[in-house]
Amino acid sequence: MASKKINPPKGTRDLYPEDVLRQRYITNAWRDASLRCGFDEIAGPTFESTELYSVKSGEGILGELFQAFSGKGGQETLDKLVKKGQADFALRPEFTPTLARMYAAHAKQLPKPCKWFTAGPYFRAERPQRGRLREFLQWNVDAIGLPSEADSTHSNAQMDAEVIECSVRLFESLGLCKKSLKIMINDRNAMAEFFKTLGVLENQLEIAFTLLDRQAKLPADSLKSLAEDAQLPSSFIEYLTQSGSSSAPNLLTNDLDALIDMCTNCNLDQWMSKDPSIARGLAYYTGTVFEALADGERAVAGGGRYDNLIELFGGPSTPACGFGMGDVVLGNLLDDKGLMPTGAELMDAVASPQASIRPVAFVVPNGDEDNEALVHTLTAHLRRGIESETWLSNDDRKPWHTNRYAVAPMHTRISYKSTRKINKLKADASDQHAKFFIEIHGEDKVELSNMDTRESISSDSHGSFHVDPKAPNYVGHAIAERM
Amino acid sequence: MASKKINPPKGTRDLYPEDVLRQRYITNAWRDASLRCGFDEIAGPTFESTELYSVKSGEGILGELFQAFSGKGGQETLDKLVKKGQADFALRPEFTPTLARMYAAHAKQLPKPCKWFTAGPYFRAERPQRGRLREFLQWNVDAIGLPSEADSTHSNAQMDAEVIECSVRLFESLGLCKKSLKIMINDRNAMAEFFKTLGVLENQLEIAFTLLDRQAKLPADSLKSLAEDAQLPSSFIEYLTQSGSSSAPNLLTNDLDALIDMCTNCNLDQWMSKDPSIARGLAYYTGTVFEALADGERAVAGGGRYDNLIELFGGPSTPACGFGMGDVVLGNLLDDKGLMPTGAELMDAVASPQASIRPVAFVVPNGDEDNEALVHTLTAHLRRGIESETWLSNDDRKPWHTNRYAVAPMHTRISYKSTRKINKLKADASDQHAKFFIEIHGEDKVELSNMDTRESISSDSHGSFHVDPKAPNYVGHAIAERM
Repeated sequence: MASKKINPPKGTRDLYPEDVLRQRYITNAWRDASLRCGFDEIAGPTFESTELYSVKSGEGILGELFQAFSGKGGQETLDKLVKKGQADFALRPEFTPTLARMYAAHAKQLPKPCKWFTAGPYFRAERPQRGRLREFLQWNVDAIGLPSEADSTHSNAQMDAEVIECSVRLFESLGLCKKSLKIMINDRNAMAEFFKTLGVLENQLEIAFTLLDRQAKLPADSLKSLAEDAQLPSSFIEYLTQSGSSSAPNLLTNDLDALIDMCTNCNLDQWMSKDPSIARGLAYYTGTVFEALADGERAVAGGGRYDNLIELFGGPSTPACGFGMGDVVLGNLLDDKGLMPTGAELMDAVASPQASIRPVAFVVPNGDEDNEALVHTLTAHLRRGIESETWLSNDDRKPWHTNRYAVAPMHTRISYKSTRKINKLKADASDQHAKFFIEIHGEDKVELSNMDTRESISSDSHGSFHVDPKAPNYVGHAIAERM
Repeated sequence: MASKKINPPKGTRDLYPEDVLRQRYITNAWRDASLRCGFDEIAGPTFESTELYSVKSGEGILGELFQAFSGKGGQETLDKLVKKGQADFALRPEFTPTLARMYAAHAKQLPKPCKWFTAGPYFRAERPQRGRLREFLQWNVDAIGLPSEADSTHSNAQMDAEVIECSVRLFESLGLCKKSLKIMINDRNAMAEFFKTLGVLENQLEIAFTLLDRQAKLPADSLKSLAEDAQLPSSFIEYLTQSGSSSAPNLLTNDLDALIDMCTNCNLDQWMSKDPSIARGLAYYTGTVFEALADGERAVAGGGRYDNLIELFGGPSTPACGFGMGDVVLGNLLDDKGLMPTGAELMDAVASPQASIRPVAFVVPNGDEDNEALVHTLTAHLRRGIESETWLSNDDRKPWHTNRYAVAPMHTRISYKSTRKINKLKADASDQHAKFFIEIHGEDKVELSNMDTRESISSDSHGSFHVDPKAPNYVGHAIAERM
């Protein structure tokens, strides 16, 4: 046993105390945004059966995986491994296959939708470079299953909007503004229709999307020769290799329209921008795709709708959408913008209170269809919190300053049941252990009650409350005072 | 891409929302106890070079590891793997080698001592059984390096006591009482001396300790034949195979005496019990070893002193001690005792405030040697918190009830500098961003000042404070009121 200096594996990190606090600053913000937006935390194994990844992505993925095996079997295991050309297990490169497996295993019993998040280590056998390590943390946020028996365009849009909202709540909480960060959205179905008008065949769509995804990374020459190899039509190749949006397709599909409407209700629309160049690399996306782009160049998060994946893992046909975000690119971005605290400020920021796991507010409409949109507007206000006058700004701002909020963000949920009966909605709120129940009768007619004491707060001297944070009787103030 | 049902790997867990909350309840408690006792969080890679584990434990460990390799190399990697008989990487089975590597890499710049904790996933290629999974979480708490130039028996005892204290603070916070949980301590040096009196040779000591560790797990027959195979003397075999403590050695060494003294200062002695049957399996322990034993049978945590390990990884000769605790055995114990909350109580317990990362209190003596012990006594009170009259009990109690504390536990630090000059101690407190500075002149003469405002709280109308939590002017109350 001689003294020996051994380095950490290439592309992995030794984190000393200040490094851990910096990482916790990010993972706390992830968790906080998820909880506020009503997502529940789940977790899966760090390694999985290798076949879990080949189901979805084909054999090509194996070269990008760290493969693993139990040393217990000795030489026999090694022989089997060489014969099969792969090991039994793989360190997870992403979460979505685990998520699909977990949902498929208990699809019948699980609530509809399942709103889940998770954050943990992931592994890629790639060459390490800036923003890309071999072990990194990733945050996954997903909504699986339809919220109700209502029409699916509306429900899908609602789930897409809730998933996107969660990413926006995160960016806001870290002090990033709409000027430095944009959510670029696209619709794979609309793009497929457009590609077909250019002569792309059904069985060429997958390679067409792969090339679209690489559009910004490869020179036009390489793109052209790859497209020609795949026998893609010349009008598609022309579209692909010409920069500028002059030839951009019309993206105004029903699905994207419904999503933009929903995002407008939640005041998210100013963060968003349609972009026909967004494809996302992975083959499993089926509709809406989006990417959070910092300063027009760095992709901080990406995701979309994957309506076929649960079925592929043995579950029922289930619409789903979600996104992933890594800690490395996000950490670099915060550093570059001076938005990462240090010293005592970092200590305080990491120890600051997080969103409660118990839902604080549960918002429902009074049955009048005109009030449905107000439910989403108020929910967004409560999840976002109301910033104090002195803090408000349109620029990136250090978010750890004290007195940031006049009303702190709160964990807020809505009902996904199709019923409009107040008693059934109250039972839903009670099943989820919500503390305050909020019934919207109109913009300035919001009734508030305490679920623990069963007291109506509106029926005492206060009368009813307002949806608008600028109104003196804003319902968020009333809840904050009673926490 | 056909639909396929794939299970999680044997011995790993899919954690749905309530499962994650139960796990968070445990990891929060780990983190909280660590922070309160002044340990800083660190983290290492999830996989390491395989050689990191053979340095310390020899080749025998390989069969217990999950080994890993990058799939990028294809057939070439597989051929190399078969030729070497092992893969380049291994999923970490324990943290100590990573810790030793991380300390050795920056030994010169790091503070003395380094008080570090970490919690994360670990992997063992063993057959899964109750309390033992192939992927589990482990909490590691370690103190590395000597606190000052003072005599090493005293300093080592202080570090051992701080490490043990951290485990006791955890058990208390989870509602476990002294009746159901005991810290069994032993001294490997004392045992080695005793074994030598029985005729055991120097080069037989390692196998002698291995057999002592298996004493409770193997029948006397098997123990005997293993001991005979190793040519151990008959008087040792007799000792090993006879149960009962009649033949127990005298454990009153200087080292163990100093540790018991230190633990008495911190009110820990009632949790502890000397036990000559504790050996700990791993070969690297060099002095004090201990095990937290629930109801006399279940080992919940284990650790000890490993003074040679940092050197083995290329660092300077450095004394060190620490322990590890897994989430599976602890979770089972809490379930069996009804000490794991559910539903809304679990949600509230998981979201309850954690110890601050910034130190709240920094306790120093006034230079009089008689007051040194009081520093440890008060520090233990502050780290433990003062329970309210209605909560106090000698039995296991559900710890998530509200109003548990009259004074909540607080993150408390002491200085490890050899100086007794108040200005230098104040600089140490300031370097660590402590909020309150506490100078002990005597049991009822405690001076308190606010480091942020530089105001002396004792010099206003309050006079000085008391070390005793039962006294009306207990210093803990004074701090809690000013938080």
